[in-house]
Formats: sequence, C-alpha cells, structure tokens
Amino acid sequence: MVKLNGDVGESFGPWQMGQDELLIPVLDMANIACGFHASDPDVMVRTIDLCLQYEVTIGAHPGYADKEGFGRRSIPMARDALIHSVLYQIGALQSLAGYRGGTVSYFKPHGALYNDMLVSQEVLSAMFTVSAVSGLPVMMLATADAEQHLEHANKMGASLLFEAFADRRYLSSGLLAPRSLSGSVLHEEHTILSQAKTIIKSQPLKTLDEGEVQLTADTLCVHGDNLASISVAKAIKALLQNEE
Amino acid sequence: MVKLNGDVGESFGPWQMGQDELLIPVLDMANIACGFHASDPDVMVRTIDLCLQYEVTIGAHPGYADKEGFGRRSIPMARDALIHSVLYQIGALQSLAGYRGGTVSYFKPHGALYNDMLVSQEVLSAMFTVSAVSGLPVMMLATADAEQHLEHANKMGASLLFEAFADRRYLSSGLLAPRSLSGSVLHEEHTILSQAKTIIKSQPLKTLDEGEVQLTADTLCVHGDNLASISVAKAIKALLQNEE
Amino acid sequence: MVKLNGDVGESFGPWQMGQDELLIPVLDMANIACGFHASDPDVMVRTIDLCLQYEVTIGAHPGYADKEGFGRRSIPMARDALIHSVLYQIGALQSLAGYRGGTVSYFKPHGALYNDMLVSQEVLSAMFTVSAVSGLPVMMLATADAEQHLEHANKMGASLLFEAFADRRYLSSGLLAPRSLSGSVLHEEHTILSQAKTIIKSQPLKTLDEGEVQLTADTLCVHGDNLASISVAKAIKALLQNEE
Amino acid sequence: MVKLNGDVGESFGPWQMGQDELLIPVLDMANIACGFHASDPDVMVRTIDLCLQYEVTIGAHPGYADKEGFGRRSIPMARDALIHSVLYQIGALQSLAGYRGGTVSYFKPHGALYNDMLVSQEVLSAMFTVSAVSGLPVMMLATADAEQHLEHANKMGASLLFEAFADRRYLSSGLLAPRSLSGSVLHEEHTILSQAKTIIKSQPLKTLDEGEVQLTADTLCVHGDNLASISVAKAIKALLQNEE
Repeated sequence: MVKLNGDVGESFGPWQMGQDELLIPVLDMANIACGFHASDPDVMVRTIDLCLQYEVTIGAHPGYADKEGFGRRSIPMARDALIHSVLYQIGALQSLAGYRGGTVSYFKPHGALYNDMLVSQEVLSAMFTVSAVSGLPVMMLATADAEQHLEHANKMGASLLFEAFADRRYLSSGLLAPRSLSGSVLHEEHTILSQAKTIIKSQPLKTLDEGEVQLTADTLCVHGDNLASISVAKAIKALLQNEE
Repeated sequence: MVKLNGDVGESFGPWQMGQDELLIPVLDMANIACGFHASDPDVMVRTIDLCLQYEVTIGAHPGYADKEGFGRRSIPMARDALIHSVLYQIGALQSLAGYRGGTVSYFKPHGALYNDMLVSQEVLSAMFTVSAVSGLPVMMLATADAEQHLEHANKMGASLLFEAFADRRYLSSGLLAPRSLSGSVLHEEHTILSQAKTIIKSQPLKTLDEGEVQLTADTLCVHGDNLASISVAKAIKALLQNEE
Repeated sequence: MVKLNGDVGESFGPWQMGQDELLIPVLDMANIACGFHASDPDVMVRTIDLCLQYEVTIGAHPGYADKEGFGRRSIPMARDALIHSVLYQIGALQSLAGYRGGTVSYFKPHGALYNDMLVSQEVLSAMFTVSAVSGLPVMMLATADAEQHLEHANKMGASLLFEAFADRRYLSSGLLAPRSLSGSVLHEEHTILSQAKTIIKSQPLKTLDEGEVQLTADTLCVHGDNLASISVAKAIKALLQNEE
Repeated sequence: MVKLNGDVGESFGPWQMGQDELLIPVLDMANIACGFHASDPDVMVRTIDLCLQYEVTIGAHPGYADKEGFGRRSIPMARDALIHSVLYQIGALQSLAGYRGGTVSYFKPHGALYNDMLVSQEVLSAMFTVSAVSGLPVMMLATADAEQHLEHANKMGASLLFEAFADRRYLSSGLLAPRSLSGSVLHEEHTILSQAKTIIKSQPLKTLDEGEVQLTADTLCVHGDNLASISVAKAIKALLQNEE
C-alpha cells in the first residue's frame, strides 16, 4: 500500500514551523529534520515523541548545513564530505530516537540535497553509500529513470523508497515541473485527489509539457504548512485507506 | 592498569588544532570532539581513522554548542536540553565510527560542561542519565567525592571512569587548583612524572592549599598542544607500561 | 513625551516571528535584531524598510550570539569581547540602514544581555562604553537606581534612555518581578492601561512585593506576539497621544 | 605605485590561522575577514590594531556565510541578499575600525565570492552596487576584461582596484590558471619576483596556455601562510620600493 510521508520537526530554537501536532497523526512516515537545515536536539525529541504517540514511522531528513537558507541552497561538497554529513545527521537522530524508545527506518535527503541527487551522479552515489552503510532505505523521487536507479542502488547495496507528489505537475522525464512554471502546483483538492488516484494505480499521468509519464511510488508526500494542506492530506489518507 | 586519555579531533573546517598524528599513537583512549564546540563530520572521520589505525579506544567528547568559545563558556541549559544535546553528539560520532568499522566506548564532557558536572547537581545527573541511556561510561574528575559519585551513578544506572591530571596541582577537595592560581600548572617533566607516579599508586598527593588528597584514577589526561607536551605524554606512557 | 518601543525584526531565514507589519505602524521606536540572537541581513533590510515607511525611529537590538537560545541565555564574556560584539552588531545595522536611507538612533541590549546589565557592573560598563564610542544612547530598565545609572553613564560619556513596562508587575527595587512569580504579568487591557498611565505621570506604582516604586521612563515597551498584544499597544499609543 | 595586499584576520575563536604579526608589517593593504567565512569580533579588533600599529590601509574581506567551508564554496544567493550580506559585513568592520581609530578604505570579496564576480554578471553587479552604496572601491582580479569592468563600474557609480598575482600563472583570458593545472602555482622566489616585475611594468605576460596577457594592476596579492611566503612578500615589497 502507498504510504503518506511528510516533512516535520522543522522548528528551530524559538521559531515554530509547520503544524506537526496536526500533520503527524495523518502521516504514515515522518521525515524529521536533523539540526543542519532546521531543528535542534529539543525539537527532534519533541517530534520523535509525537511520532511514537501516533505510531508513525520515523525517517531522518538530513540536509545541507545551512539554516539561513533552510537547506534549499545547493552547497558544493565532495562525495566523502556528503557521506559524513548525512551519516552524522542520521546517527544523531538515531541516538535520540533510541532514547525515546523508537528507531529510524529510512532517510530522505532534504531540499537542495534531494534535488541534487537527480542532477549529480556524485550526490546520488553518496546517498546510495549512506543507504548501504546505514542499512536504511533512501527515499527519492520516482521518475522515468526509476528502473536505472533501482539497478544502481542494488549494485551498491542500497535500498530505495520511491516518492511521488499529488499536488505537483510533472514533466515527461518524470521530474517535477519547476515551481516557476505556471500551473506547476495544484491547489484544488479534487485535482490533487485525482492525481493521487492516478499515481496510486500507476496509471499514465498527463504532464505539463503535454506528454505522459507513468510513476510507481511507495509513498506520496503531503504538507502541513496550513490548515488547507492538512485537510488535503486527510483526504488523500482516506483515499489510500479505501484503495487498500 | 591506568590508561592515558587525550582530547583530539579539535580542528574545524580550514582550522587545524593539536597534533593528532603525534598524540593519538601515544594514547589508550581518545576523546573526539563531536561538532558542537569543535570539529565537523570530516574531521571526525579523519580522527576516527587515526584511532582505528593505532588501536586507540574511541570516546565521544561532547560540549556546549559554542565554537567561538570552544565550549569553555558555561551556557545555561535545562536538564532535558542537556541530555538531548549530548545524546545527539554521541549518536553522530557513533554513526561515523560505525561507518569506519569502530565503536564509541565512553564519553567525556568537554570544557565548561566537564566543570559544570562538579558544580551543578542538575548537570551531573543529566550526564548520568546520558550514561544510563547510552550504556556508555562517563569520564569525570576523580575527586574526594568519588565514592559519592559512584553511588549516585549506580542508582541511576550510569557507569563512571575517573580521570586525574599529572600536570595540574590539586586542592584538598580533589578539585583542580584554578589555572589562575600561581603554581597550579606543572611544567617540568620530572615533576609531572612524579605526580603521575603518586596517582598511579593511589598515594596521598600534596595539594596547593597545603593539604593532601588521595585519588584513584582509571585514566590520566595528557595533552598534545605542542611537542613538549607530547614528549611528556610519551614519558608517562612509558611509566605506566613499567608499572604494569 | 513618553515613546512606545517594541522588539522587531526577529524572524530568521525561513522562520517568521512576530507581526512586524502590524506592530511597527504603532511604534515610535523599533528595536531591530542584528543577526546574532535572531534575524539575518535580509530580514534586517525588510524591517528597516518598514520603519522608514512608517517613520519609526530605528534602534539596534544586539544580543548574545545564540540563535538556538534566542539570546535568552547568559553567555559569559569578557568586557572587551562584549564591547566588540555589540559594536559589530550596531555597525552591521548602521550599514544596512544607511543603504536604505535611514540611521540608527539608539541601541537596546536584548534578552539575557539586557538583564545582565542590571546584575553585572562589568556588563553595564561595557554597554556604557559602547554608548560613548558609538554616540548612541543605550536603552535600559528604569529602576530605583536610575539616578546612579545616569551619573555612571555621564562619567563614561554614555547617554541613557529609560524604559518601563506597562504589562509587567515590579518589585520595590524597580526590577521586574520574575515571570515565574504568579501575577507578575498583566493580561487585562484595562489593568495594563492603568499601569501605563501611572508610569507616564511618574506616580508611585504598587509593587508585587507590596511596596511602592516611582519610575520615570522615556519609553514604554510593547509587544507584537499576537493580535491581542497589538490591540493593547494601540490603546497605549492612544493614551500617550491624549496625554501629550 | 603598485601596493601589496594580503588576506589577514582569518583566525576564529580558539583557532589560529596565518601569521598576521609577520605579514601585516609587510603589507600596504590588509584584507580583514568580517566574521562570516572566518574571524569574530575579537579577532577583527586584534587585526585592526595591528594594521593601525603598522599604518597599513584597512580593507573589508567579506565572504559567503560558511565557516566550515571557509567561504570557498559558492552559495547561491539572490542579488539583493548578496548586497545585504556584504554591506552587513563591511558595516561591522567599519564600526570596529572606528572604535580603534581607523577607517575601512576598500573591500575585496573573499574566496568563492571573489571568483563568482568573474563568472556571474549578477554577483559582479551586486558587488558594484555595494561599492556605489558604501563609497568604497571593490578590489577585483585584473583580467583582459579590465576595460569593460571599469566602464560597467563607472556606470553604476562603483570604483575599482585591480589586483594581480605574482605567484600564479595566468590564462590568455587574464583569469588565473586553475590550481588543478600542473604548473599553475609558482614556488621559486626568483620566478615569482620576475612575474611581479613584469606585472608592475604592465609588460606582456606569458600564459600557461601559451598565449600572452597584459595586466595593469593597482595591487599585488601576497600570502602569509608560512615563513617562505612571508620572505617572498618581503622580496616583492623591496622590488616595489626600488621601482618607485
């Protein structure tokens, strides 16, 4: 069954972000920021506790070490440095999860690091090494290259979780249409639900560049920025449960 | 047998500190900074690799999150926040040590955090909780209160390693005489060796306040700031091996 | 005439704090965070622009370099280090204010640094040095020691602005009753307005420890955390304008 | 007359870098790091004091906010964000210089920011805006495009200082040959002096790609990493003084 995942634990010190108390109960998998692009040890523990309370699977959400840019700026790093940085972040979360009686089950690179995986073979291979070393699957975008990514991962001893978006239009390459393109983000609940249904059934999806792409996803990403997005998340959750 | 421990892995980004290549081969136990008061993921891996090469036991050296102050400034933190911060740092090092084929065997609070353990019951108890949760012994100063500390730790499920200094004069309380006091730091190799010998044999030690204190230590701390200190470390090492 | 001041520009990177668009139009003087405990160069410019738009006097709001603790944790610093840190922050704001066509007219230490001024002669004297060097008045709490503070400042070439709080109960010392004391924070608009009136007229104020204190303030501090606090700020503003 | 400039004030907290006590007396112009890629307010003041002692012109050396990467990693920033960041850093140094009785006379972007000026029109134009706004000349690489850069700067109200390197081989474009190319860095004192002489006289310089380039420079950059580099700096200084 396709799972719902969402980015959580993105507050930092005195600054709140998101509505984790409302979003986490809707999720199956929670991507928890690890203190480099957002969060701090206290926020991490609060977020772990919410996940344990609602029996949500805990994932690490490592990012570039850049709070001011929220991990959305691509920072050039050598392959080894990337591996060390991500393993550091995962280990920190594992230690805190263990303290609260939980475990970390996967990791999903955040922001620019997530995008860089699909652009740079070096970054992709660094993330696969982290997966192989840590024994944790890495969550990445389901694209038209999913088969190749699976093969590559297998060779490296990595495992993958494929993610799709119900509220973003795609390109024929299976990449997300950039937010700068008009129409690239879906706002209407019924349109989002319709795209969710198409993805869940692995049916061909009309793309913004007027082609088609067929995606097979383990999980759909939802957002908790505002009450509307949480209502959408709940609707997708209901849809997934009916499909089951 | 009394072991030699030293603080290592204190470089950061482009900045070098210490002479780890020279000091680590002399050590039995290496306290590795974890990225909060010093170090970064790359430096941590380099330091772990040196420890594995010379078969030196790896310990975590967590500190206050304060690079500018090098963890030497006491930052007021709630008990829980301290626990979270130290577990975060230990987990990060554990993850990187595991990647290189090593394990973390103990932790030693750094700088102001080390001192605060002996001043604040709240900090002490936070460190004991971290020891109990992580299963790692915490290294602390051997003082006249060592018995009490052991009892307290036992009750909390924590384990302890007691540390002494061969190059620092003591007070009758078993605390180190503050560096501001004249004569508090020993510089002559033969005086340092003589104090090392006294400590190793748990014999009464003359204190700077003209009393005596008897310390039982699991480990002696040595330094690698300069070539002289490394020569002293080697001399203490030879002494320990002869005592064996 | 007594002025209204408020803390603004406390967002950081992706994290929003406060409601500057609503609060700044109500203020006479805006204390702008300078990037150490909150804010970044972009937030600073946005905040300066709001101040210029509403013709609000710009002040620097320097704090301890501690975003995670929001400058609310007292970090031990040598006198010189404090002077350097605060001058650094003021200069950064001056440069950005100049870019937008404004100037910085005063500074107000933030959080723990604000409190430390009243506790530590060293911190107080460091802030007076900054005032003398920069030519900017420093805003500090109006206490029963105001006369002494004025004399001390005069001797050092510093100038002062005294601040009072309409929504906090006082102690006879003229210090604020700690938030931990029940009843120390006023929540009812009419009680707050009544205290504002008493302060504006320099009449004796009943204190939480059942004494009295008489305060003379140049400015009252108001908050913009929520809509209620902004409504209170507007009411105090109306009061001040009627008194004029 | 061609001046000698060098990067100084690159220590941070407990970490030392460079040999400012030896290098600054040799310099005409000192590029002082401003706390973003290196330094802190205390280091800045120590460095300013050395410059004042040896009557060396003070320049700001702003960089990307990235201590771990020492400002050598290109961080994608919007034009406005860059302007704000650099003005922030310059203002901070101006405030501290003023405190010590000095002034800031120019700025030189550091590391990746320096390189990005020659690659990105947006970064170049941001730096020219900072020059126009601050009234300070910006130091940049003298290339074959120097004329165009001067025109561009003039139009924007910016002023320029052109810099050349005596110890780096060039490409015909007037850009430095990348360090990765064999032979791109000169190590022999006599070869470096010979290139310095060629640049000072604006004579054609043989390039690594077997072409020629003619550079006109206001200043030569020298280094203080080790005793050898300081000896070279002194030799260039002597050369400049003889040419006078």
